[in-house]
Amino acid sequence: MIVLTNDDGFNAPGLRALREEVSKIADVVLVAPETEQSAVGHAITLSLPLKVRKVVEQGEFIGYAINGTPADCVKMAISVLLDDPPEMVISGINQGGNLGTCVIYSGTASAATEAAIMGVPALAVSLDSFTVQDFSFAASFVRQLVPTVRKKGLPEGVSLNINVPAVSKEKIQGVKVTRQGKSRVIEKFHKRTDPRDNTYYWMAGEMVLSESEEETDCEMVNENYVSITPIHYDLTHYPMLETLKEWDIEY
Amino acid sequence: MIVLTNDDGFNAPGLRALREEVSKIADVVLVAPETEQSAVGHAITLSLPLKVRKVVEQGEFIGYAINGTPADCVKMAISVLLDDPPEMVISGINQGGNLGTCVIYSGTASAATEAAIMGVPALAVSLDSFTVQDFSFAASFVRQLVPTVRKKGLPEGVSLNINVPAVSKEKIQGVKVTRQGKSRVIEKFHKRTDPRDNTYYWMAGEMVLSESEEETDCEMVNENYVSITPIHYDLTHYPMLETLKEWDIEY
Repeated sequence: MIVLTNDDGFNAPGLRALREEVSKIADVVLVAPETEQSAVGHAITLSLPLKVRKVVEQGEFIGYAINGTPADCVKMAISVLLDDPPEMVISGINQGGNLGTCVIYSGTASAATEAAIMGVPALAVSLDSFTVQDFSFAASFVRQLVPTVRKKGLPEGVSLNINVPAVSKEKIQGVKVTRQGKSRVIEKFHKRTDPRDNTYYWMAGEMVLSESEEETDCEMVNENYVSITPIHYDLTHYPMLETLKEWDIEY
Repeated sequence: MIVLTNDDGFNAPGLRALREEVSKIADVVLVAPETEQSAVGHAITLSLPLKVRKVVEQGEFIGYAINGTPADCVKMAISVLLDDPPEMVISGINQGGNLGTCVIYSGTASAATEAAIMGVPALAVSLDSFTVQDFSFAASFVRQLVPTVRKKGLPEGVSLNINVPAVSKEKIQGVKVTRQGKSRVIEKFHKRTDPRDNTYYWMAGEMVLSESEEETDCEMVNENYVSITPIHYDLTHYPMLETLKEWDIEY
């Protein structure tokens, strides 16, 4: 059984496109948030109860919608909802790239990371466009990748963050294994006033490409390659360990 | 100016203890969530407006409370609220350790990471107890560490995740530079029924120590050392890059 989840919500077209393709090669069950959860990062829900809605469409059971985050969905799928551990978790297909520094805000990637923490191989898949809704190439790419992941396996704790350019298959230049780039969104806060004269702000911003981005996810997707970045959850900055040991830290 | 933030909310005693100590050596401003935001991870708020409340206590301006996440607070402090970039961001003192795999769920750590992304040196500080409310040693430890961080600096993108055992200063064994351990919370979902016969779940769980945890944050705090782990936001699993390049990935 393969669990499909996302952060755009149970009815998002990217999730449905994924289901259509992956169900050709595996039993699938959807376990996804009821509503959009974009930019929730690796949030989990400790202070609210989680409700699970069994979803039947045209007489067929297709999965569970949960009033939680993508990481909640993965935890519940593995711990509560399935009888046996799934063979894989696939998160997506996200509307919008999850590239560079932005990966840390990504609910899509966090679902894959959560699965990896729980010992289940996982993929996060995003289409690099907020408007193009043709998920067909991205979905068929995933369908083709699943048997390879089954055969090769993934190391403990590692999942794959896949970003697909929003162009037709003919324009795709190839597949590149990448590291996470340093490009990031530079925020602009729009200041507004509500009808009762209270000030409020909307967070906005745009992706600013960092200069030296060779072999990164950002650069490769920009050049119309599918990028695949192996990601994990160990945030330790290893090069700094030795430096820090030389500091004279008093207490 | 040093920005103090947290994920337990503006009125949390850990934040106030931090303010009391750090204000002895620097100008400080609190920019913190209105309400508790534990386990929000690196969530940011894109779909709701952010409101900023200027907080004056006993005639003195002390900072801003925001209806957002810790990462939102850091973004707003640096982009909107302060005239000049702060010299440092300190997040905490969290009620409860942020250790091992749990760091990825931590709002406290995400505030420090967000500051690092924005080019500001940052510390995340947690007291390893959900009940002990004596933050005095942890706060004075931070006050002593700030001049060292000022002098030595931190590499681009790196912040320090500090966990302090909840014991008296006499019982502290020392300070250890650590890597993030693999210990994690094993979830248990408590199943309940509401008055209208709907099923719901509460996420619960307990920290399970991983076996070989030498030199990790989890182990060292358990042995009553203050642990300091340098963390960053690059999730790339570098050892897997070469392996993955040998896969035959079709499209």
